[in-house]
Amino acid sequence: MPKTKKHVTFALLGLGTVGVAVAELLEKNRQLIESRIGAPLELKAALVRDLKKDRGGVPASVRVTTDPASIMDDIDIDIVVEVMGGFEPAYALMRRAIEAGKHIVTANKAVLAKHWNEIFELAHAKSVDVYMEASVGGGIPCVQAINDGLAANRIERITAIINGTTNYILTGMASHGKSFDKALKDAQAKGYAEADPSFDIDGMDACHKLAILGSISFDQRVRIEDVHLQGIRGITKQDIDIARQEMGCVVKHLAMARTRPGDGALEVQVVPCLLPIDHLLARVDGVNNGILVKGDAVGEVLFSGRGAGGLPTASAVISDIIYVARNVAVGVAGRVPSIPYDVEKVQNRHIVPAGEIKNRFFVRLTAVDQPGALAAIARVFADHGISISSVAQNEKEKGSTVPVYVSTYQASEKAMRDAVESLEKLSSVKPGTLVMRLEVPEA
Amino acid sequence: MPKTKKHVTFALLGLGTVGVAVAELLEKNRQLIESRIGAPLELKAALVRDLKKDRGGVPASVRVTTDPASIMDDIDIDIVVEVMGGFEPAYALMRRAIEAGKHIVTANKAVLAKHWNEIFELAHAKSVDVYMEASVGGGIPCVQAINDGLAANRIERITAIINGTTNYILTGMASHGKSFDKALKDAQAKGYAEADPSFDIDGMDACHKLAILGSISFDQRVRIEDVHLQGIRGITKQDIDIARQEMGCVVKHLAMARTRPGDGALEVQVVPCLLPIDHLLARVDGVNNGILVKGDAVGEVLFSGRGAGGLPTASAVISDIIYVARNVAVGVAGRVPSIPYDVEKVQNRHIVPAGEIKNRFFVRLTAVDQPGALAAIARVFADHGISISSVAQNEKEKGSTVPVYVSTYQASEKAMRDAVESLEKLSSVKPGTLVMRLEVPEA
Repeated sequence: MPKTKKHVTFALLGLGTVGVAVAELLEKNRQLIESRIGAPLELKAALVRDLKKDRGGVPASVRVTTDPASIMDDIDIDIVVEVMGGFEPAYALMRRAIEAGKHIVTANKAVLAKHWNEIFELAHAKSVDVYMEASVGGGIPCVQAINDGLAANRIERITAIINGTTNYILTGMASHGKSFDKALKDAQAKGYAEADPSFDIDGMDACHKLAILGSISFDQRVRIEDVHLQGIRGITKQDIDIARQEMGCVVKHLAMARTRPGDGALEVQVVPCLLPIDHLLARVDGVNNGILVKGDAVGEVLFSGRGAGGLPTASAVISDIIYVARNVAVGVAGRVPSIPYDVEKVQNRHIVPAGEIKNRFFVRLTAVDQPGALAAIARVFADHGISISSVAQNEKEKGSTVPVYVSTYQASEKAMRDAVESLEKLSSVKPGTLVMRLEVPEA
Repeated sequence: MPKTKKHVTFALLGLGTVGVAVAELLEKNRQLIESRIGAPLELKAALVRDLKKDRGGVPASVRVTTDPASIMDDIDIDIVVEVMGGFEPAYALMRRAIEAGKHIVTANKAVLAKHWNEIFELAHAKSVDVYMEASVGGGIPCVQAINDGLAANRIERITAIINGTTNYILTGMASHGKSFDKALKDAQAKGYAEADPSFDIDGMDACHKLAILGSISFDQRVRIEDVHLQGIRGITKQDIDIARQEMGCVVKHLAMARTRPGDGALEVQVVPCLLPIDHLLARVDGVNNGILVKGDAVGEVLFSGRGAGGLPTASAVISDIIYVARNVAVGVAGRVPSIPYDVEKVQNRHIVPAGEIKNRFFVRLTAVDQPGALAAIARVFADHGISISSVAQNEKEKGSTVPVYVSTYQASEKAMRDAVESLEKLSSVKPGTLVMRLEVPEA
């Protein structure tokens, strides 16, 4: 028989930007939030590393502690909200909380992407809820929208801009004429990029988030290793300008997961990509995120907004707390099914290996300006079975080399990789080829 | 003690386009849908007016009946799904179903907008769930996203394109150079507009939907009568071209609800409006809908997609059925709070009377081409306390009159109405003035 509860309590693991924002937002909009739950909601404790740090607007009534046991052993705490980030100790603490029968709300994309099955299997065994709206898209309620709002659909495709840093850099290059380095420095100055920006600009952050979006959308686990990954390093302002002038496209760093026509196998990739300027995601600029979902019944639905920041993330975290707290209040937490809990009933689609994924391509080659160079290049594409749809060579740089932009019809990633290897062996092609994808339907 | 249920059943009221699509989508994606519920889901019966009509892919096992009692009195039916549309008999049947203790899923914007309080008060008294995702935005999961996903936010503003017909007509005029009449005829030919298109083009459909969005967003009832309403009749292709050339704006039929700075009173309107071309809603074209929500924590979030059609609507209806069926299965249906249920705890903000709403304006006057005409016009605006921000008079038509476009700074709707009345009394101004709003922040 379910145990109802008149008063729901939670603890925060972590009191950084997001943790403090959760505490402050709860104080600010408490009446609104509690009316959605149907019960009072209390932030009882918060786990921190350093007791001396300033806690912003966290009320004095909140027990701030460095001792996890004082949270895990407190039988009055219903929900543990993990907002510390990083793999450890976050993962160990989440497991410990689940073992203790506590429901979980987490913003931790890294842990979810890596330990998806372990977490949901343990949660299933212990009959606890796990919610994770803030792990993808900041405050944009896309996780629950896919989980619940589009639950009647077979999802066919996710196309998403889910890393604000790379989007800010690409937008800075496209709209404000900045170089890659200048755009990156600006992002760092504004707090949108880390001192070491690799995690964002090489695509691992988007890869984690896509693993989560894929896992909820396709009813099967999508692993980090399943994602074909290429970051945005090497893209120049000229590449972006040519994409616009010659192809009518913007350059975006896209996270994509789609079922392959025919066998329904999953193609999962995070890659730089050309999108037509009238594409729904083409106007998702700056640090904004956009998640475009195609379902078999609903067609295409776009969710967009700020993908990061303390308050937007707190908005998502509290929406999850409300879901769980409602379930706690009426005594059904851990018993309402959600997609990830179905660990025994998952689909088992083939995941297409990176080399077999088919894309259209937009390739920048550095060619030596000599007679026959273009013919030799075209020959290599043909030898690898890749059909060229257009070539642009309209801007002559000083010196002896010119950038040549080649767009192609569909080919496999492996064919393109091999072609680039062969191309760079030509006397007429220098190293440093850039390969982007072209999300434009073939005519 | 809550009664759990191993097998959840529902009945459809209506087997038109949406009803048939619900039945077909359930058959197609049954495994997916039942895994979200955690229990089998059965469509047991459907109420129709004419037993002889073709039922598409509705399974033969479904009892099709003209007798409401056979549904209302069937104690095995848990959920009644109303997809017949119109005020009556839909409203009477919904009441009857609630009285019989059945949970409600409805796509009926008209009934909800008109009888919001009556329905939720009765549902509250009878402890039944009422869900309504499909009433606004077709398949776009915006209702639950506001209700749940943004539940931690104080909503400050909703700006939305929620009528596909008017958006299709305006897009046809803007992008395809059609006249209003031609664009309307096209919409009718494609099934996007009724033979009598008044309900859509005069704005009543959007008004119903805004009443619903307003009621869920601001925790208080927004009535049809609270909406300041102007349709899109009278807008010409030239108006749209001038808006683009002179103002860098597109013309959209916007549903807007916003809290007034200072006192937090609600301004609610459905009006033709100029939006800058880089506005998030400016690219929501054709029959698509877009709902832009601004919350105090999340900032701006956009939801967009197809706002109508059998399958998208069925997607929304079934997502609601899943919510309710889950609650039924674990025995808490009618006990999980949602915003609309809080009929006793609602806010009570002042609703700003139409005349007091402040907007910027974009006005097209038909002026007699004579010396001093512009001076006289400017004088009238000044006399009514309205500051002009720009005037365009760049296209001379044949004959003695010219269209003059005046954009203004903020003024009240009443001041503008009075100004137009005075303007049309001038010898230099002919009748037929068109007033649109200008959603461009003042510099």
